[in-house]
Amino acid sequence: MLKVSARAQEMPASAIRKLVPYAEAAEAAGVKVYHLNVGAPDIQSPACATKAVSERCAGMHHLSYTHSAGLKELRTAMVEKYYRKIGLDIDVSQLLVTVGGSEAFAAAMQIAAGPGEEIIVVEPYYTNYQTYAFLNGITLKAVHSDIREGFRVPEISEFERLVSPSTRAVLISNPCNPSGKLFTREEMLAIGDFCRRNDLFLICDEVYREFCYTDEPYFSALEIPGCERNVIIVDSVSKRYNLCGARIGCIISRNEEVMACALKYAQARLCPPVLGQYAAIGALDTPASYFKEVREEYIRRRDCAVDALNAMPGVFSPVPYGAFYTVAELPVDDAGDFAKWLLTDFRRNNETLMITPAASFYKTPGAGRNHARIAYVLEVPQLRRAMELLAEALTEYN
Amino acid sequence: MLKVSARAQEMPASAIRKLVPYAEAAEAAGVKVYHLNVGAPDIQSPACATKAVSERCAGMHHLSYTHSAGLKELRTAMVEKYYRKIGLDIDVSQLLVTVGGSEAFAAAMQIAAGPGEEIIVVEPYYTNYQTYAFLNGITLKAVHSDIREGFRVPEISEFERLVSPSTRAVLISNPCNPSGKLFTREEMLAIGDFCRRNDLFLICDEVYREFCYTDEPYFSALEIPGCERNVIIVDSVSKRYNLCGARIGCIISRNEEVMACALKYAQARLCPPVLGQYAAIGALDTPASYFKEVREEYIRRRDCAVDALNAMPGVFSPVPYGAFYTVAELPVDDAGDFAKWLLTDFRRNNETLMITPAASFYKTPGAGRNHARIAYVLEVPQLRRAMELLAEALTEYN
Repeated sequence: MLKVSARAQEMPASAIRKLVPYAEAAEAAGVKVYHLNVGAPDIQSPACATKAVSERCAGMHHLSYTHSAGLKELRTAMVEKYYRKIGLDIDVSQLLVTVGGSEAFAAAMQIAAGPGEEIIVVEPYYTNYQTYAFLNGITLKAVHSDIREGFRVPEISEFERLVSPSTRAVLISNPCNPSGKLFTREEMLAIGDFCRRNDLFLICDEVYREFCYTDEPYFSALEIPGCERNVIIVDSVSKRYNLCGARIGCIISRNEEVMACALKYAQARLCPPVLGQYAAIGALDTPASYFKEVREEYIRRRDCAVDALNAMPGVFSPVPYGAFYTVAELPVDDAGDFAKWLLTDFRRNNETLMITPAASFYKTPGAGRNHARIAYVLEVPQLRRAMELLAEALTEYN
Repeated sequence: MLKVSARAQEMPASAIRKLVPYAEAAEAAGVKVYHLNVGAPDIQSPACATKAVSERCAGMHHLSYTHSAGLKELRTAMVEKYYRKIGLDIDVSQLLVTVGGSEAFAAAMQIAAGPGEEIIVVEPYYTNYQTYAFLNGITLKAVHSDIREGFRVPEISEFERLVSPSTRAVLISNPCNPSGKLFTREEMLAIGDFCRRNDLFLICDEVYREFCYTDEPYFSALEIPGCERNVIIVDSVSKRYNLCGARIGCIISRNEEVMACALKYAQARLCPPVLGQYAAIGALDTPASYFKEVREEYIRRRDCAVDALNAMPGVFSPVPYGAFYTVAELPVDDAGDFAKWLLTDFRRNNETLMITPAASFYKTPGAGRNHARIAYVLEVPQLRRAMELLAEALTEYN
């Protein structure tokens, strides 16, 4: 009998997106849905980005492929106008443009580990790490970080316990999606030391680097001394400038062997989207004041969301110091059922909200079953209304 | 010791692109290189495509993700303004927008076959089929089509011979990249019947559908009666409109299970590039006369290239009836060495050319060792000059 492959069949559907049909149905029925489920910010993109696209479109004869690693002009601009400015000294040959951050971590995982091998993650982690691990026959082993301890990074002994002859890498996101946890310099140095001692790659997803809400300077994995060969950075340009749809990210490593493999992956898909590359070239001229304003706006939103969450009976959320997410413990048995119920049943003034159940961000069985990820990506008045709805929904649900 | 994964290390580098460093070196030294190596046409994109991008950029607040399957507006326009017009009746739910044709066949292969399973291809085939097969632990089994028989599709008994309990699909491109072979209606019906009898998917890469040079109407795999559940179409929008860099393609199937899996893959990478989706929306308003002119231009180029090739002593190329490639047999031992020598040593009036060695398009050991793929993607005067250079190079090389 004709059947799709077992792997395609067993591939987990995105937890973040599998509620989409219910949201679409609600919206089709005229219900206003507040989307706290996807990290899709509504902040204005820098005008220089879209202007660059229009200008290049105006004079265009045809739109060819670019180099598989991306336009040299873009790679050079990224190194000189962004990384150098934030104190990260990398060479153009150590950077390759990808189709969003997604392609960067998918490639990084495959470069680090093959079928039957293992990667250590800190749970809760970004759910698509699991998706790409599954697709490539890689096993994720999770070190648990606990919501009640503010998602503090566990002792290195917890990492050591998981090391086997098949372990090839540690994969973290900093700041962390979904928890908003910002790794300290000391935590990063300890993980770097662990990777070096155990000959592991350190894949660090830094796509939320510009979304940090402390006065401490951000400490990139690229700054860990002696870890030059171990570190593979996953980054996004489009997310940084509120151009998520442009799908431009990059993979960075000082390890030549890693970059040679990254180029082979890149060549197989020909080139990254060129109009998005144009937008990225334009975006690199964004003034520094832009990030400052964006940061202030997110601090307002975070405070609005987290204060409201912690004021709800039975709800607990630590304060996130980065990204635009928080994970909250809810007074429900199963946050998945609750999230679905919000879309199918709960209505107040013909409004409801969409949140992401967090169980799929954990490996440990049962962990995070009553957790949800809240993306604070709406303006404060809307976010406040969404929080009111959540409070009323929890009362009604229980 | 820290090492990249065995799979990443053993992954074959793109045969089409691994000569790139030599071409870059020649160009850096001021040599003019005629590029007959990549299917990157130089024909003007329709103005309505770039206009749509500029218009949408002008009014843009920020650039969000779209639905993982692509903008509904684009999917609907593709169905109504393109597929319906060419007589293919598909529903919007049977189409999903991908990052170029590349993502479409990568997903189709994974949906059809898992690690340890097999897909039958007709050699010569597009080299990246092998790349994605390798990455996913899929084995390609090749039916040989012979240059001296004009790449005629072999008897179905040749396909039957390859069927094992692990065979999951047949994968072809029609018109064929690299040979330019256009499958006849009878050949397609026979392959469809074979797939149905053996419960195999038929993955048909139709990205060159609008580039056919006969008076016969194109016969799509979607038209094979009774093969609705078997057929998975790989298509490209960007290639069709000379917008290769936009990276917009699609996967089409009437098999719901296939489309459900395609959506899971699509969700893992969030969404296809949005600026490219805008370009595709605009491109769908291209008048039919555009394709007619493009077709006439390619016929001129094909005739120029193929006539010149066959006039060179010891060179043989069948006449291709589709796509913009031909495979030529050259009077050399190894077309790979020759292609490299063209870039590193051969100069005439400080000019040279770049061609693609075709050995990696074959599975059969030794097959295609003296074949090269010639992409006739330059204007006739340039193409003529490139052919002169090739003739002189062959004389000098031997």
